[in-house]
This record gives sequence, structure tokens and C-alpha cells, in this order.
Amino acid sequence: MPVFEPGWVWLVGAGPGDPALLTLLALHALRSADVVVYDALVDSRILALAAPAASRVFAGKRGGKPSPTQRDISRRLVELARGGSRVLRLKGGDPLLFGRGVEEALALVEAGVPFRLVPGISAGLGGLAHAGIPLTHRDTNSAVTFVTGHVAGGDAPDHLNWPAIAQASPVIVVYMPLKHIGRIVNNLIAGGRPAHESAAFVSKAATPEQCVTETTLERAPDVARTVVPPAIFVVGEVVRLRDGLDWLGALDGRQLNADPLGTRRRNDAG
Amino acid sequence: MPVFEPGWVWLVGAGPGDPALLTLLALHALRSADVVVYDALVDSRILALAAPAASRVFAGKRGGKPSPTQRDISRRLVELARGGSRVLRLKGGDPLLFGRGVEEALALVEAGVPFRLVPGISAGLGGLAHAGIPLTHRDTNSAVTFVTGHVAGGDAPDHLNWPAIAQASPVIVVYMPLKHIGRIVNNLIAGGRPAHESAAFVSKAATPEQCVTETTLERAPDVARTVVPPAIFVVGEVVRLRDGLDWLGALDGRQLNADPLGTRRRNDAG
Repeated sequence: MPVFEPGWVWLVGAGPGDPALLTLLALHALRSADVVVYDALVDSRILALAAPAASRVFAGKRGGKPSPTQRDISRRLVELARGGSRVLRLKGGDPLLFGRGVEEALALVEAGVPFRLVPGISAGLGGLAHAGIPLTHRDTNSAVTFVTGHVAGGDAPDHLNWPAIAQASPVIVVYMPLKHIGRIVNNLIAGGRPAHESAAFVSKAATPEQCVTETTLERAPDVARTVVPPAIFVVGEVVRLRDGLDWLGALDGRQLNADPLGTRRRNDAG
Repeated sequence: MPVFEPGWVWLVGAGPGDPALLTLLALHALRSADVVVYDALVDSRILALAAPAASRVFAGKRGGKPSPTQRDISRRLVELARGGSRVLRLKGGDPLLFGRGVEEALALVEAGVPFRLVPGISAGLGGLAHAGIPLTHRDTNSAVTFVTGHVAGGDAPDHLNWPAIAQASPVIVVYMPLKHIGRIVNNLIAGGRPAHESAAFVSKAATPEQCVTETTLERAPDVARTVVPPAIFVVGEVVRLRDGLDWLGALDGRQLNADPLGTRRRNDAG
């Protein structure tokens, strides 16, 4: 393992929730850091793995209270590193996929603070695996698109080319989908996706409170009202594969279906 | 950590290469397994972490020799599990993103063999992080598309909707790009992507032999002749961020640029 030197900042992905999905390098960073600057998506069981003497600095949003700006967080990282600390900047999921890690890293470059980037398992991958929903399957898709449902500042991502997104990939994964789900769904249906297409929300993925809600594209905005954030939204036939791949449900006795798409006979005949 | 029971198969992602990017659960699986069935993308340093007494079964492709079919591999997994072994099916990257994990999992369901899915860090995420190339950045994109350059059987992915893919996401990541790179590039340019757009190959990502080649879309097919597989291909302005984020290069003395897109003055003015 690389040595975590004083005066460095490591930008580290904490994965989707389950501490067992931390990387070995992330655990090493947690045990070595003097300060852990974490956001709201980092699971408390993961934070508990930090050294007992480490300071913990919350840098996320708390309901109702003003949250630190990106500039505040970057300035704080620089100050802590200049003070000689080993600074672990811990983000839920992966820092470079909708994680705003780039802005923080460039602020460190600007200040001359040395840093390391440590990827984590993004919720759109690992969270869906815990829901029994794969991103690709030979019979369904060879492309997948990840979009954010919530751009910087909280606006709907209306600048995206939704007609192209609707047509590009049989599978679409939306991060932070809840606030603007009505517009997202309208955009996808207007772009040619069938209203009855399979879709699912995965709430609190890879935690003990994980909740998977299967639905259709057109019903998703209604269903979203009952979904607890943080959540991931996925659209596509891969959702139907959950009947065969819900390994977590199988641990609780669910009977899995070896032919969830009903295609096996067709393939064998071909 | 969950107990790895005899007679079970765990389908586990080994991450992009660096053993430090294994998950804690993958390491636990390696140490517990009686048999490790691994493919060609699994790094030998990772395989070395298996228990000394564990059997190692190669299930990948070897140059010139016939490789086992997917059906052969699935049958082998079932046989080993029925024989009472703890069977670790170890795949490079993530098993559910271009990993063909679905087919193997459904074969296990068919045979009544219990299984667990353990996500890993896909090369298109973790490998690019080691190259200093982020997947998203506020100033460049809120969507990213992953496609495979090589569908089952080895054909070019000509069935994909390339015009839509070209327009859907400012950033496109292509897995297994080398064989059909000429057609992929032609499809993207025909779909409206600028011929001079930034692109990069990352070869042997997150290993000591990692090699990053920055190029443009139009020059990529020529450049590809010198790229050693396995490789990832990425298209988009995020490639230019490498001037600021090449943390691995910085360890060797590279001077990083805090404003790699040349946009800071513009943003500050706005």
C-alpha cells in the first residue's frame, strides 16, 4: 500500500454503502488519515472505520441548514493539508462520476497540495448489483448511459439531449432522480421510450435499509413520491432480469427464475 | 463479512488491475475459496492473494488455443459447486458491466446452485481514474455512455444506434475498442462528433504497465496499432482534464495545470 504522507489529500470513493464494498486502499486511507472530510452519502459504518484519533469533518448538506459551498470545501482541504495533516476526502460512490471530485482536485493543484485519486464503486454499478439488476446483458444491451437528474445548483438537466439519450442506450441510469423525475420521464417518453417500459428505483442501495421498487416509466413519477433518498433510477429491460438475479432476496427465500426474459427457448431454437 | 459456504458460487469483480482496488469482500472471497475460476483480465498479483491450497482454474482466452465457451464455464461452475466447493468466479472489472456475469448467474439459478454477486470497480471507471481522466465534470458533461467495441462472437457493434450515441453524451467510453476502432470512429464522426475531438487509450489500466495515449478521434485508428490490449478508449473533453489530474504522473514529477480547460477566467468573470 502507498504511504499516506502528511500534507497530502486523498480523494477517495467510499462505494455505495456496504463497508465490505470499500476498496483495500480506501480502508488503508481511513486507518491512516488524521482528518476525514466526508459528505452526506458516506455510510456511518464506514466512517466508524477511521482511526479513533482522527477528526471527522462533515461537508455535506443537512436538511434546512446552509451547506458549505464547493469553494468552502476546497479551501478547507487546502488549509488542513497545509497544516500538515493527512487529509482523507471521502465521497459516497466514486469521486469522478457525478462526485464533483474534479473541482476539488483542481483546487488542490492550484494550491500546490499533492493528492491521489482513489476510485470507488459507484452506486449506479454496485448499488444495482445489490438490487439484482445488471447494467448489461448480451440479450438486452451493449450500451448503457449514466445521467444526473440534478445538475449543479439543483436545476433539472434540461440542457441534455434527451431525444438522443432515449435512443442511444437500451439502459439508462439516472443519479439523483427524485426531484425532477416527472420531467425526466416525459423527456424519455417524448424521445421514443415506451411508456410501459420496465424501470426501478433503488433507495439506500447496499445498506440494510435498501429498498427496490420495480415500476414502469409512466408510473415512475407517482411511485417516486414514496421513494426515500438517496436513490438511483434505472430504465430498461435489465430490470426484468431481477427475477433471476435477486440474490439478496434469495437469501430470504425468494425463488429465482432462470429465464426472466422468457427468451431461452427462442435462443435454443436459434 | 458474510460466510462463504461450501456449495456456493460467488461471482466477484476483481477491479481494473491494482490489487489495492479490490474490495474487502473480494479479498475475503479470495482467502476463503476452495477454487478460483478466473479469466484473462484478472491480474496475477490478485490471483496470488488466494489461499495457497485453493485450486486455480483458468477460463479465459489464450492466444491461438480454443477457449472455453460460456456454456462450458457455466457447467464447470455448477459441477464444482455441486462437489461441495466454495467456488469463486473472479472476473476483471465488474461482472455486470460487459462482464457476462448474467449468463453465468442464470445458469446457476437453473441448476439450483446458490450464488452471490459482488461488484468490482470497472476498468472504465477505475482505470480512467488511474489515468487522471474523470468521467464527469460540471464544466464538460452530465452524461456518459459506456459501449462495447466488440460484441459476443467478436463482431463490430454495428447494431448500436451510433448517431444517437454520438449525440447523447459528451463523454463516451468504449470497452474492447481495438479490433473495430476504425468503424467505431467512423460511426462517431458520421454521427456528428468533431474529428479533432480529444480522445485517449488507456492500456493495462491500474497495473505497473499502464500506458495512456492521448490522441484525437480521427487519429485514433492509426494510434490504436501501437496500443497493447486490454485497453479502454475514451472520447470527450474530459481527456483534456488529464493535464490537471494526472496524479500518477505528478508522483514522477509532472507539473499539473490547475486550469486544464482554460475556462477559469471565463467562469470567474461570469
